Formats: sequence, structure tokens, C-alpha cells
Amino acid sequence: MVSNSVDNIVIDCLQYANWSPKVFKQMREGNVDCVHVTIAYHENFRETVLNLEKWNTYFSKYSDLIVQAFNAEDIVKTKREKKTSIIFGFQNPSPIEDDIGLIEIWQKLGIKFMQLTYNNQSLLASGCYETNDAGISRMGKEVIKEMNRVGMVIDMSHSSERSTLEAIEHSSKPISITHANPSFWHPAKRNKSNTILKCLSESGGMLGLSLYPHHLKNGSMCELNDFCDMIVRTVDLIGIKNIGIGSDLCQDQPDTIVEWMRNGRWTKDTDFGEGSIENPGFPKQPNWFKDNRDFNNISKGLKKVGLSSENIKDLMGRNWLNFFKKSF
Amino acid sequence: MVSNSVDNIVIDCLQYANWSPKVFKQMREGNVDCVHVTIAYHENFRETVLNLEKWNTYFSKYSDLIVQAFNAEDIVKTKREKKTSIIFGFQNPSPIEDDIGLIEIWQKLGIKFMQLTYNNQSLLASGCYETNDAGISRMGKEVIKEMNRVGMVIDMSHSSERSTLEAIEHSSKPISITHANPSFWHPAKRNKSNTILKCLSESGGMLGLSLYPHHLKNGSMCELNDFCDMIVRTVDLIGIKNIGIGSDLCQDQPDTIVEWMRNGRWTKDTDFGEGSIENPGFPKQPNWFKDNRDFNNISKGLKKVGLSSENIKDLMGRNWLNFFKKSF
Repeated sequence: MVSNSVDNIVIDCLQYANWSPKVFKQMREGNVDCVHVTIAYHENFRETVLNLEKWNTYFSKYSDLIVQAFNAEDIVKTKREKKTSIIFGFQNPSPIEDDIGLIEIWQKLGIKFMQLTYNNQSLLASGCYETNDAGISRMGKEVIKEMNRVGMVIDMSHSSERSTLEAIEHSSKPISITHANPSFWHPAKRNKSNTILKCLSESGGMLGLSLYPHHLKNGSMCELNDFCDMIVRTVDLIGIKNIGIGSDLCQDQPDTIVEWMRNGRWTKDTDFGEGSIENPGFPKQPNWFKDNRDFNNISKGLKKVGLSSENIKDLMGRNWLNFFKKSF
Repeated sequence: MVSNSVDNIVIDCLQYANWSPKVFKQMREGNVDCVHVTIAYHENFRETVLNLEKWNTYFSKYSDLIVQAFNAEDIVKTKREKKTSIIFGFQNPSPIEDDIGLIEIWQKLGIKFMQLTYNNQSLLASGCYETNDAGISRMGKEVIKEMNRVGMVIDMSHSSERSTLEAIEHSSKPISITHANPSFWHPAKRNKSNTILKCLSESGGMLGLSLYPHHLKNGSMCELNDFCDMIVRTVDLIGIKNIGIGSDLCQDQPDTIVEWMRNGRWTKDTDFGEGSIENPGFPKQPNWFKDNRDFNNISKGLKKVGLSSENIKDLMGRNWLNFFKKSF
């Protein structure tokens, strides 16, 4: 049972900001109680440890604003202290390199989510930008077992259709799509089919809805009302309990970062991913969701399209908290 | 043109022995002029550099027996000096990790061959032990271009059907299967279909025939005559010019090595690969091919089944030498 004090918890299940005290303060101003923070795109083991070291200095320096959380209880406690919980995840399995033994190492260091792929084929599965998708590989099946065993959540946000369906099937625990929207609303490569949404929710998995303009109908010009209508339709499709927010907010990042996200070290050409040669950088956020202070705009928008206040609370944080309780 | 002095050159296009002066002396006794040596199965960049360092000590200590070769001219010169040329290759792309820039680095260090996969799915393609094969991945296509550019030969010995055919198609230069046999003779997972053999040879690629018992009809009990009959049938299928030897000799290796080859760091269970729980170790070599002194047995066997002496010379080394001239 979720206690009363966390009734109005706000959880954002994906951000990758250019971290600064400004951003941490905005989390507090926006009453954001917990953020799932990406600490690896293409970083290998050692490079990801460096990112973790940087976060240790943030936790020490900004201890009045943020605290690392290892489980749902930590998140509840931190909310009561009026601080924001940070939980960590990887958007690519690169930090485990080719070594299944690193999963337990990362779990001990507080990694709660790992994507099996980031756009391209990995050792484990296939990404949504590959033309062909062979599903979960031999190592992928072993890694799923190990993630289930240690309590690290599988995230298929950047994976392709077959790999995602097979991950749901092979995993003994519910999986997640932390940041993507339904493709019935906006058919981007990164958004998800009704088949996936249904299999995901029927198996107890969670969908985090994204505010990243490439995932939105009309991109940066997407209107709040349109976004909230999409949520109502998604609730109609899969029910309220398996939906949350995963904003994919990349606040204050320079465009070199989206270049790194797309190209890593895998190509000598330039891949523009969801962008294009004319539009290579980070897209502009919609004016109703620019930073952590704007979560309340979503709540207001949902009220306007007729979602009940209980459903709004579920969606803004309670569903993720319940999922964390079962998963970590 | 191959000059007279290299008319009877003997090249073995794959070995992975437990290296020692004993093995190097046997190379000389067997008149083996050049050996393609595997220096990485699952090793990452840094670990593979360590293997290279070990080889530098061998070259220094046993300079009367072995010399590192960087091109075909080196091999010819070393043969005249009555020493054995060593060229290097990887059986897995693990030494380039996720970094396409490492291909040029390895080429400068003398790496001549790289397999796109070893049994399992890699970042580049699919291995012959995967159930599903999506062909060459996005990174795989980039890596093929880069290997073509720097002059590193693609080796698909441990890859699966579709990935192999697509590698032939995408590569602007002929590729290789350094160590495998035709599956028409022995339908092991590691052996190759007629479709592959034809596409390979028509595109100028080379097949190195394997003496590893799991690739042989009747395994360790395979008879020389049977092996030579298979060669005649393969010549009938694809002609003589694209066939050589790639013995896959793993002399003096302890069984812990075949365990490492099969399991690397990708599983917490035990994978037995071509072996089984009853037969987990290295298989016994056939009594007519136990070490580097036995290459002449193959020549004799080929004469017995009626292959011309010119064809035998092509097969024992001249074809590989010509391929090296075009490829490195």
C-alpha cells in the first residue's frame, strides 16, 4: 500500500539533462520527487564509473536538493525530506561490455534500469533503427535472466518490435518502456505499436510517456491538449495502472551531446537519428514543458480532458512507485 | 606472379596453439612457411594488446624460427630465410569493442583478419549458434567499409548463413572463411552450405579447409582419404583457386581454453558449443594430422586421390599467398 504522504508523488522515469544546481532546484520547484537519470549511452564500464563518480560529487555538494535512491522506501523517505530522489539507468548495455558478471556489480552500485539496445543492434537484441531484427540473442537471454535475478529492470525504449516482444516473453518480471509514446498517435520509429503496448501492460510492465519533441505529434509545436488526448486514448487501450511519465528531458544540453548519443563510436559517417541534416540538433521543447517546473501543466491538462484526480495521481507518479516496489 | 622459389609454399590460415618453441620448431620441421595465428576470441582492446606483447617476446626470443609478416612480400622473404611467417587475426570483433576507429589502429599493428562474429550475435552480425540471423547490422556495414579501406580481411568462419552472404555482398573486396568445411560433407553448424561456397568463390573469396575434428566426418576417426575426397568434391563445386588450408589446430591447449572460447563472459551457465556435457574438452586430432609436421600427409593424400601436383601446390599455399597479395 502506498501511504497517504506519497499520494501525490511525482516521478519522471527518464531525464538526461546537463546537470547543474539550477536543474536540481527546478526539480524542487516543480515538486518532482524522483527522477530516473541516464548515466550511459555508449560509455564502457570504466567510463560509466567516471559518470557515477561525478554524481557522487553532486550528491555531496547538493545534498539539500538530491539524494541517490536504491529502492522505493528511499524514495518515500526522501520525498518526506522534501528532496528529489535520483535513480540511475543505462540507455545501452555498453557498461556491461561483454561481461554478464558486471550486471551484479552495477546493481550493487544502484543501477535500476538497463536498455538492451540503443537504436542499433547490441550483443543482446536489436534496436529500432536496424532494418532487421532477430529478437533476443543467446547472450540477451542470459542477461535477461541475470537482470531478473538481481532486480534490474529491462528497458526497451529504443528497441525494435520483435526484440521488445521477446524481452517481455523471456523476462520473468515485468519490463519497462521508460520513454516513448504510442505510434497510433505519432508513428515515429521510437514510438510503440498497440501490440507492444498491450503485451507490456498485460504482463505488468510500465510505459513512460515522452515529452521529447521527436516523439510528439507536431514536434515542438505539439499542444498540451493533444498530448493529454493521447493519454486518454492510451488509458482506453491499456488501462491507467501501467502508464507514467518518462519525459526524456535533455535540458541545457549542447548539440554535441545529441551527436554523441546518435553516433557513439560506431560510424565514421554522421547519423542524424530522429533529426536530419537540416535539423541536426536537439529539438526545442514545447512551451508547456520546458523544464522540471512544468509537470503541473501536465496535471492541469489531464484534468481538462476529463481524467479523474485519482487517475492523474496514478499517472504522475504512483504507478511508477508501485512498479519500483515490485521491481528493485 | 608467384616466383619459382615460392612455388611450394605452405600456408596454414588458422591455428591457435599453446605457443612454445616446440610448436615453432615443428612448423619448421613441417616446412610450414606461414601461419595465421588467432590472438583474440573474447579479449577486449587492452587484453588483446597484452597478447600482442606476448608475441613480441616470442619474435624476439625465437627469431631463428618465426617472424611477424605484414604483407605477402614479407612472407616470401621469410620463406627464403627458412623461417615461418606469423600473421595475426581475431576470431571475434571484441578487440574493436564499440569503436570503429580501432580498426585502423589494429591494421597498423599487423592484424590481417577479423571475424565479424564468433558463434554469437555481435554488434556487427550474427553467429552460427544463434537461432535467428538478422544479417549485417548498421555498425556491421560501417565496419566492412572501414576494413575494406584499411586492408583487413573479413572472416566469416563462425558466422551464420545470412550474415555470411550479406558480408560477401556488402564487401567491396573478397572475403574469407579461414577455417570451415563444406556442410555437404559433414553438416556441422560451423560448416558451410553450397550457396555460401559458390558466392564466396565467385566473388574471389577464399575457403580454408579445417582439420578440427568437430568439422570432420567421423570426427577424430576421420580418414585422410575421406578428407581428400571431400577436397576433390569441393574443387568440382567451386574450382581449385579459392581453396586453401585453415587447420584450426589448437595444439597443446588445456581444456580450460576451449571453455573460454565457448563461454567468454557472456553466460553464467556452461555452453558446450560443438562439444557436449559428455565430451566437453578439445577433441583428439586424427592420427594423420596431429601437428605442424603433418602437412605433408595432406599433400600425399591429395596425390593419392588424383589431384595434380599443380593443384596440390595451389591448395597447400599458393592460393592463400595470391589472396594475401591482393588483400593486405
